[in-house]
Amino acid sequence: MEKISEGKTKEVFLLDNDHVLLRFKDYVTAGDGAKADIIDGKGVLNAQTSALLFRLLEREGIETHYVGMKDERTMIAKRLNMIPVEVVLRNYATGSIVKRLPIKEGEIFDPPIVEFFLKDDARHDPLLNYHHMRYLKLMNEEEARYIEGIVQRVNAVLTKVVERLNLVLYDFKLEFGRLGNKLLVGDEITLDAMRVREPQTQRILDKDLYRRGYPLEHVKSAYEEFLGRLRNVV
Amino acid sequence: MEKISEGKTKEVFLLDNDHVLLRFKDYVTAGDGAKADIIDGKGVLNAQTSALLFRLLEREGIETHYVGMKDERTMIAKRLNMIPVEVVLRNYATGSIVKRLPIKEGEIFDPPIVEFFLKDDARHDPLLNYHHMRYLKLMNEEEARYIEGIVQRVNAVLTKVVERLNLVLYDFKLEFGRLGNKLLVGDEITLDAMRVREPQTQRILDKDLYRRGYPLEHVKSAYEEFLGRLRNVV
Repeated sequence: MEKISEGKTKEVFLLDNDHVLLRFKDYVTAGDGAKADIIDGKGVLNAQTSALLFRLLEREGIETHYVGMKDERTMIAKRLNMIPVEVVLRNYATGSIVKRLPIKEGEIFDPPIVEFFLKDDARHDPLLNYHHMRYLKLMNEEEARYIEGIVQRVNAVLTKVVERLNLVLYDFKLEFGRLGNKLLVGDEITLDAMRVREPQTQRILDKDLYRRGYPLEHVKSAYEEFLGRLRNVV
Repeated sequence: MEKISEGKTKEVFLLDNDHVLLRFKDYVTAGDGAKADIIDGKGVLNAQTSALLFRLLEREGIETHYVGMKDERTMIAKRLNMIPVEVVLRNYATGSIVKRLPIKEGEIFDPPIVEFFLKDDARHDPLLNYHHMRYLKLMNEEEARYIEGIVQRVNAVLTKVVERLNLVLYDFKLEFGRLGNKLLVGDEITLDAMRVREPQTQRILDKDLYRRGYPLEHVKSAYEEFLGRLRNVV
């Protein structure tokens, strides 16, 4: 099968004219790829987490690229023309926003803050506004506003399910792709792209563990725990 | 007279309850204040340039804080509640945007690109989107869109006058303030906040001369030349 692209954590193979296979690798990376490690089994955990969450979104009427699973680490997905933009929704302040702006860790965003970033490791994923996205032919303003609406709907679904795991959804990142004239949620929904914490203890269960230098086994067991809790509720 | 604030290039004095005096200093700075020098007479040149351009905008029906001149380097202005945001309009790519994004020097933005930056030297004036500005209580989205409209109108006026000087307007920066429920153009319109070049030779006549390390006399004579040309046409 033809490999049509490979990212830091996934390989993409052409399945047929309308479908791809997304194979989740065991790599974990941070700092625009500056830091990278292998965690055996992480690919399976992320593929399974993504599958559960995509199915949940589909049940709530949000269109995604998800079709089904080929094997435990390989997703069958609609073949989208991906937009190289990361769309971030933030409910609580953490990560890059507290470094960039006069905002402190843990501040609550209500309504949430939505940001668009260009996927460009060499430029450290710069923030984009509507004008930039139009000029760079990424999306026009109408599409950006539509995507902001979808991201808010995804937030409502994810916030609720994460709450049922006795966790809090701090923020998450989505990527979108075009299929004909439709915009669908693509890529993945995993702990690599989502921050969840325990409300009382502030215990972290996401990739921030890796960013902060926790042992790889610690990272893996958090991912396992999250998937385990998720399986109990969806 | 009470000095109510002082920036890198201007002092602000309270004239009466509704008016301030803006005294233009002879400082020239770059790199968020990292580089600073004195050019004797620059304050006068910038005050005079601002006065001419504010009067031009007012004639075109664009409301500004400009009232009149107290002396050759001191402007009488309406007392605004200034919003600490720089609004940048770009017709041609140069400066920070070519470092931040995959855009090359000299690319043409048609329609222009508008950007909002937080005035925060320590954070290197980070880019803002509508969500950030709402959360930071800088302005709501409706106000941001209104300001984008004003900036476009200012661009039409400035582009035309700069053309009559046989120059091209690459970009400019405005700051806005509130007066009651109105949003007015405040601050200054000078070669510190505007990039103009000769179309054939690409000769620079603005603060980029200083940023690029040209001798201070060279910078001053460009400012003088621009003001001289401006006086001949407005």
